[in-house]
Amino acid sequence: MEPILLYDTTLRDGTQGENISFTAKEKIQIAKRLDDFGIHYIEGGWPGSNPRDMQFFDLAQNTTFNHARITAFGSTRKAGIAASDDPNLQALLQSNTPAVAIFGKTWDLHVKQVINTTLEENLAMIFESVEFLKNNDREVIYDAEHFFDGYKDNPDYALQSLMAAVDAGAQFVVLCDTNGGSLPSEIVSSMKAVCSAFCEKYDTTKDALPFKFGIHTHNDSGLAVANSIEAVDCGAVMVQGTMNGYGERCGNADLTSIIPILYFKMNRPCVSSENIGKLKKLSRFISETANMIPLNSRPFVGKSAFAHKGGIHVNAIMKISRAYEHMEPDLVGNKRRVLVSDLSGKSNVEFKAKELGVELAANGVDSREIVAEIKRLEQEGYQFEAAEGSLKILLEKFSGQFKPLFELKSFRVHIEKDAERPCTAHATIKISVDDKEEITAAEGDGPVSALDNALRKALYKFYPEIENMRLIDYKVRVIDGRAGTAAKVRVLIESRDLDNIWSTIGVSEDIIAASWQALADSFQYKLAIANDKT
Amino acid sequence: MEPILLYDTTLRDGTQGENISFTAKEKIQIAKRLDDFGIHYIEGGWPGSNPRDMQFFDLAQNTTFNHARITAFGSTRKAGIAASDDPNLQALLQSNTPAVAIFGKTWDLHVKQVINTTLEENLAMIFESVEFLKNNDREVIYDAEHFFDGYKDNPDYALQSLMAAVDAGAQFVVLCDTNGGSLPSEIVSSMKAVCSAFCEKYDTTKDALPFKFGIHTHNDSGLAVANSIEAVDCGAVMVQGTMNGYGERCGNADLTSIIPILYFKMNRPCVSSENIGKLKKLSRFISETANMIPLNSRPFVGKSAFAHKGGIHVNAIMKISRAYEHMEPDLVGNKRRVLVSDLSGKSNVEFKAKELGVELAANGVDSREIVAEIKRLEQEGYQFEAAEGSLKILLEKFSGQFKPLFELKSFRVHIEKDAERPCTAHATIKISVDDKEEITAAEGDGPVSALDNALRKALYKFYPEIENMRLIDYKVRVIDGRAGTAAKVRVLIESRDLDNIWSTIGVSEDIIAASWQALADSFQYKLAIANDKT
Repeated sequence: MEPILLYDTTLRDGTQGENISFTAKEKIQIAKRLDDFGIHYIEGGWPGSNPRDMQFFDLAQNTTFNHARITAFGSTRKAGIAASDDPNLQALLQSNTPAVAIFGKTWDLHVKQVINTTLEENLAMIFESVEFLKNNDREVIYDAEHFFDGYKDNPDYALQSLMAAVDAGAQFVVLCDTNGGSLPSEIVSSMKAVCSAFCEKYDTTKDALPFKFGIHTHNDSGLAVANSIEAVDCGAVMVQGTMNGYGERCGNADLTSIIPILYFKMNRPCVSSENIGKLKKLSRFISETANMIPLNSRPFVGKSAFAHKGGIHVNAIMKISRAYEHMEPDLVGNKRRVLVSDLSGKSNVEFKAKELGVELAANGVDSREIVAEIKRLEQEGYQFEAAEGSLKILLEKFSGQFKPLFELKSFRVHIEKDAERPCTAHATIKISVDDKEEITAAEGDGPVSALDNALRKALYKFYPEIENMRLIDYKVRVIDGRAGTAAKVRVLIESRDLDNIWSTIGVSEDIIAASWQALADSFQYKLAIANDKT
Repeated sequence: MEPILLYDTTLRDGTQGENISFTAKEKIQIAKRLDDFGIHYIEGGWPGSNPRDMQFFDLAQNTTFNHARITAFGSTRKAGIAASDDPNLQALLQSNTPAVAIFGKTWDLHVKQVINTTLEENLAMIFESVEFLKNNDREVIYDAEHFFDGYKDNPDYALQSLMAAVDAGAQFVVLCDTNGGSLPSEIVSSMKAVCSAFCEKYDTTKDALPFKFGIHTHNDSGLAVANSIEAVDCGAVMVQGTMNGYGERCGNADLTSIIPILYFKMNRPCVSSENIGKLKKLSRFISETANMIPLNSRPFVGKSAFAHKGGIHVNAIMKISRAYEHMEPDLVGNKRRVLVSDLSGKSNVEFKAKELGVELAANGVDSREIVAEIKRLEQEGYQFEAAEGSLKILLEKFSGQFKPLFELKSFRVHIEKDAERPCTAHATIKISVDDKEEITAAEGDGPVSALDNALRKALYKFYPEIENMRLIDYKVRVIDGRAGTAAKVRVLIESRDLDNIWSTIGVSEDIIAASWQALADSFQYKLAIANDKT
């Protein structure tokens, strides 16, 4: 079967979603991950619309992508000017991407009432914009905005607008359900009619047309995934969507559903099976970067996607998993969970302990007990997957191998604010190292910063090697928002020295207590590796 | 067009979802709401499987339902016993419901390897169970579990199992995609084949068959809604699903999408248009009762379902809303929202000010200046699209209309930790209201909680109406993690009273300062709306 080209627009259409925004650097990190995963086209932004997207394309030019074509997005030229004078098209060229996507108007309603021009001028705008980009050696992807609504209202004009793009040399014509209101049956009937019209125009078969069809859908009716795969059945070979379905209103077509459907259920090659095995990780990376809580019930990649609760179901899957599972969870990097009596774990922990250099067997530790302890802590909100520094300390404590390199005696943090003047924070801390005590104080930008500075100052007396250690990331997540300011928070701290990067975690109702746990673990971890070396 | 019967299983299949459970009383409340809304069948539970469901049916017998048929759910009889001796079928009769749904095995794999009986005995179990319930004057809905998987593996046997139910007098045969793995094309081809087989058997047309088809789908491939409406196109007249799509794994078909699609897009009567106008309220009632955070991007009923962020979109919908909306939001009781962000322009702000009840023009304010100020603040890390409460206050301040209902004189927060003992936090606060000062102190789970408690206590003296106000969500995001503990943080607080939900924001290097801003804005917002009413 003909392979499908995956076109990801998480970085552009995805950021139209409520509460979704990325810095230019985060966009580069995401683009790198999408490239590693095997996405064919990565739409990075709209350089003509805002400086942040322009910055992304500057950074992208100095970044190596092994597989994906980075794509800049824009619109057809403005009415009444030459394409070469259009600042938006100029910005597309300046982005220096091999491929460019531009959208144009298909729906006569928009031509007349939104951009207020004539139907003829709109066709010229499409033709000349595509031609201009082609003349500048770009691969051109033409997004026919509102194609399905336009085709319903005025099929002749909608078709003419596509033909203008094709006549000018567009390699892809992407049919967009911009408002997300179309039903699968409408997608199928419109696409069939359009295919026939083009086959007639070129007097050839669908496969021999001088361009390829793509599909771009939105989820306003909960049908974006279905509409995308129906379009593939009708001949589309490019699917546009976003990771986790992020996007304006109800979101775009969710590639985390579409990719496994194409590969496993429709037998359409798109990315390697090895990479599909990393789909869940990719989905989580995107949600973490966006700081969006991952949706448990998300098909294929959600935490609950293969979670069984009903007794009859659990009983049956223990006999034969496909009794209540439509596929093997590990094909997408997910796992089966049983909600009543969770079973897994022992071998994972043993594997991980070895990796972290903690000898469990030597001390006669039953790793099943550790599994139980980890499960109990994860129930409380810990997440050791993201905090291997703290996991190492936990494994050492559990197997009696933990040697604390300092001990907390006490700390006090004091925050003051007077009327309109800024907050101030200072901390005092008392620690001991080998029975020698040290008490000191420091200020900071807020209580955690003050505590960090005070601990660092106190430890430096004993361990000057912490000089080269830095905290590089500090993340706070409220675990259960419903309890308001008394809710539990999870703090993740990432630290580095010249050679290593490690993460630690703390969980508490009190953000200072949680931060302290993560901070203390981070310094303990650093001192332990420094000690091992000496 | 033939009306569609809506069959809601939120109270049974919905509770198989992770973290979803209802008390028997909550189930009655939900059933009452579903009845008011116009749902035709309400599946209340499985009386044979647990005492809570049994209790629901006891309560239901003393509750008046004006419209819906309350339905008890169970399975076909066990292998090797008489239907009249089966405790599960007995429990169904004891539930005293007018309608009963039972599921039976369609897939030979399940017959042989899960329930370990013969294919013949399974057919007898189906026939005799349906016959037994019919003889006891129940309307019988037969759920053909795993119909689509079974039909794929062994079409003859799958068909025989349906015929057993029909021969015994089942009024509805519901085809179930239990594992949620089927594609729309598979639903269509299987249903067409089954319809033909029955038409041949009875030598009649689809409409004259002695039973009706129903459809029951799961969302494991993100296709539950599409599969349901495709089945309706193939002749199903009963659609089973849950509110908000709650259910095992990835959930059931979401009735909050299916109902408006049926009514507005497929012209299939199901509930009155007046009641569909209450769909969003119903969805929120269910999520509140289940204590699940409502999904913003949920089609039709989510908070973001009609939210516009891109400047081009906002500009267009102000000219003509269907330019970027597939339907009028108020048809489902939702509303249009315009998100103000650095992607937006003058029209977003003007629209938003009107919505929030702030008169900009009256005070001769140039909204371009406000846009510039918002962009500057967003550059600093504010994000007003998620904080309409703070945006309102900002707009009022900018146009000289802000009247603070309290002023902060000072606060002090003190955090203590000794060795291994837990952290403690207490706060003192001094505020003034109309030149009257109040100083007080409170403890809390952490510094923000202590501050919240102290402010609440101080304000209560002046404004007892804050009694019904609650903080319901508290989110912290580090804006640039690279700066470690000195990084800027953004705090978002969501609050509610009996009628409203609002969000406020604070940004600072100091998490306490940022939390204070959001907290103070939230109380100012609440007091302003309370004041407007009086």
